[in-house]
Amino acid sequence: MTKSPLAPAAFPALPAIGGVRYAAVAAGVRYKNRTDVMLAELAEGTTVAGVYTTSATRSAPVLDCQSKTGGPGTGRAAFLVNSGNSNAFTGRNGAEAVAAICQVTASTLGIEEARVFTSSTGVIGEPLPHDRITAKLSELRDTLSADGIEGAAKAIMTTDTFPKGSAATVTVGGKTVTIAGIAKGSGMIAPDMATMLVYIFTDAAIGFDALQALLSQGTDRTFNCITVDSDTSTSDTLLMAATGASGVDVTGNAEFAIALEGLMMDLAHQVVRDGEGATKFVEVQISGAATDGDARKVAMAIANSPLVKTAIAGEDPNWGRIVMAVGKSGAEADRDKLVIRFGDILVAENGWVSPSYSEAQAAGYMKGQDLVISVEMGLGAGKSTVWTCDLTHRYIEINADYRS
Amino acid sequence: MTKSPLAPAAFPALPAIGGVRYAAVAAGVRYKNRTDVMLAELAEGTTVAGVYTTSATRSAPVLDCQSKTGGPGTGRAAFLVNSGNSNAFTGRNGAEAVAAICQVTASTLGIEEARVFTSSTGVIGEPLPHDRITAKLSELRDTLSADGIEGAAKAIMTTDTFPKGSAATVTVGGKTVTIAGIAKGSGMIAPDMATMLVYIFTDAAIGFDALQALLSQGTDRTFNCITVDSDTSTSDTLLMAATGASGVDVTGNAEFAIALEGLMMDLAHQVVRDGEGATKFVEVQISGAATDGDARKVAMAIANSPLVKTAIAGEDPNWGRIVMAVGKSGAEADRDKLVIRFGDILVAENGWVSPSYSEAQAAGYMKGQDLVISVEMGLGAGKSTVWTCDLTHRYIEINADYRS
Repeated sequence: MTKSPLAPAAFPALPAIGGVRYAAVAAGVRYKNRTDVMLAELAEGTTVAGVYTTSATRSAPVLDCQSKTGGPGTGRAAFLVNSGNSNAFTGRNGAEAVAAICQVTASTLGIEEARVFTSSTGVIGEPLPHDRITAKLSELRDTLSADGIEGAAKAIMTTDTFPKGSAATVTVGGKTVTIAGIAKGSGMIAPDMATMLVYIFTDAAIGFDALQALLSQGTDRTFNCITVDSDTSTSDTLLMAATGASGVDVTGNAEFAIALEGLMMDLAHQVVRDGEGATKFVEVQISGAATDGDARKVAMAIANSPLVKTAIAGEDPNWGRIVMAVGKSGAEADRDKLVIRFGDILVAENGWVSPSYSEAQAAGYMKGQDLVISVEMGLGAGKSTVWTCDLTHRYIEINADYRS
Repeated sequence: MTKSPLAPAAFPALPAIGGVRYAAVAAGVRYKNRTDVMLAELAEGTTVAGVYTTSATRSAPVLDCQSKTGGPGTGRAAFLVNSGNSNAFTGRNGAEAVAAICQVTASTLGIEEARVFTSSTGVIGEPLPHDRITAKLSELRDTLSADGIEGAAKAIMTTDTFPKGSAATVTVGGKTVTIAGIAKGSGMIAPDMATMLVYIFTDAAIGFDALQALLSQGTDRTFNCITVDSDTSTSDTLLMAATGASGVDVTGNAEFAIALEGLMMDLAHQVVRDGEGATKFVEVQISGAATDGDARKVAMAIANSPLVKTAIAGEDPNWGRIVMAVGKSGAEADRDKLVIRFGDILVAENGWVSPSYSEAQAAGYMKGQDLVISVEMGLGAGKSTVWTCDLTHRYIEINADYRS
């Protein structure tokens, strides 16, 4: 598959994280000639927290992870992830597959089943050939490596056109704490929560409640603020492991919280940049709404509107569709108070196109790759920023023919 | 533009309605070489009722119609509609354009301005060249004809690929009452209310409150149950005129109510059949939900899902995406109680694909033009049926390049 034109130049050099080792293997779950299973082994004492899809039809591995998150174990732990098959809507077979994978992972690594967290991503409704995965566990264990994170990022891809990674370091009391994360996701992306898989690792020490709070809050401001196609996955999973190997406790540390949220935002933006068929990265900024909730409604109505997204694909500064989306959002709005901008270009105010507006200038702006659409509502202090991409022929091509 | 493959064979033969005359003209509002303004003149004593978009950024003509609906006048009345320009988000100029058109229509026909109802449909945010319309009013008046309804239906088209009309007759106390309606709409179609223009005429006699109640209730079950692209117009308008020319009072008559709703449903389905780029007409039936509201949430989540709609375009029986859409809808759902069917084909039950399911058989079904997707939720008595179309390359083509 051709790499997204919005992709970063290269996968970043991610630092090793004390207490974490990775492996990836080609198990032939569905894809041929590529890796499709990744294992991350986590040192004793690692805190694991997670955020999961709110879908009412969430997958068997998600249900299993949820039941284990916040559990009492402190021994070594593992993340085991396959691509190609989501093990969602697979009936009783789905739970049995998860149990089999967890059992073999636990016995192969010599850890508790309650400390094995699995994810599956890919087609829905087909039985997961879990024996292909379990047959590879010894090989995975024997190839675990502290610098295997890029391979792990590649093994979890589905329709992604590039692997996604991000890192951050924080200095706390003169000591360095490191965070590294990987993600996959390019379609079926919308809140709740950004329809993707994300794994974040740090050598910081932090308890479960504090880590879970950071993750939940950060997700609301990052992964829950992106949308590719308004569709929500049955498999969304964000898992984070804090090994404590640095010996630095970051509980309550603001710099760590900021660095973690920055890393989450970077990964979230990379997912949008790999949106199926995307040729434009679009930031939608809403301010002056009656409430933050209203601002979010307007932002998502714009970001999810097929008419707005096709206009962007066509490099058409069709601001009338922005007005339409504001109007349909359900948020309080006063047509005559709206101020609409494309980048720095004042487009509309006082209920109409601005006297200074130049269609040629706006059309020139729309030819850019990274666009900002902003709307001031003129009603209050509510604000929201979300990120999305355009809707192109390529999205149709990818999704009209996904299973064939 | 090529006619939709889902279009009816021909425009139906619509009966004349006592008390109504129509005219259409090419005023050059935006389009060249086609009619773009229609006038319907309504006899003295005509009751006029209306249902309008709930958009917070609704257009100047919608605001004007709303202010006049239910007003005290009983003299002759008129509907004046242009295509090509929606006169929405046109600031103070918008209201001035409506006032100018109403004034000239009233003076040309010799009627009250309060009895002139106007609609505009087309691009948003460009000033309506109302003088091109008012310059044609004498010609419109001089060409009014009882059999001009097909011409009127053609003049209100924008991206429509065929004109839409429907008729019904009802016998009340041995006398015949006739209803005829026309509609336009093919994109920016979603509740509230079906994003389109609809004009219905009858020779029945009925008071405003009774007619308004029939229209509002019928809209909820017809036009508000269709969606093409989830986008809601700033101009949605449904106007109905009851001239009383038949001498038959239909207040409280059930047959009339049923016939009217049937006509509204026919027009609503025609709008979906002309959905931008549509190649499939899809009925989504939800039953067994906890409440009717939940059933509607599920139905609309399926009908608006880009992933479901692209799968249908690809003739792919990708029922996993139906599960996804149920899950994201926000409605109460139990994964293991869902029963999913494509037409009569049982696809999934007990939380998984049915043992009897044949992918080849389902793929054969998806090659049809009219499809039914049904989901039994297994929770209660809530139900909802909505209609939509597939999402194809043609939708992107039409909407990425609409203004150029």
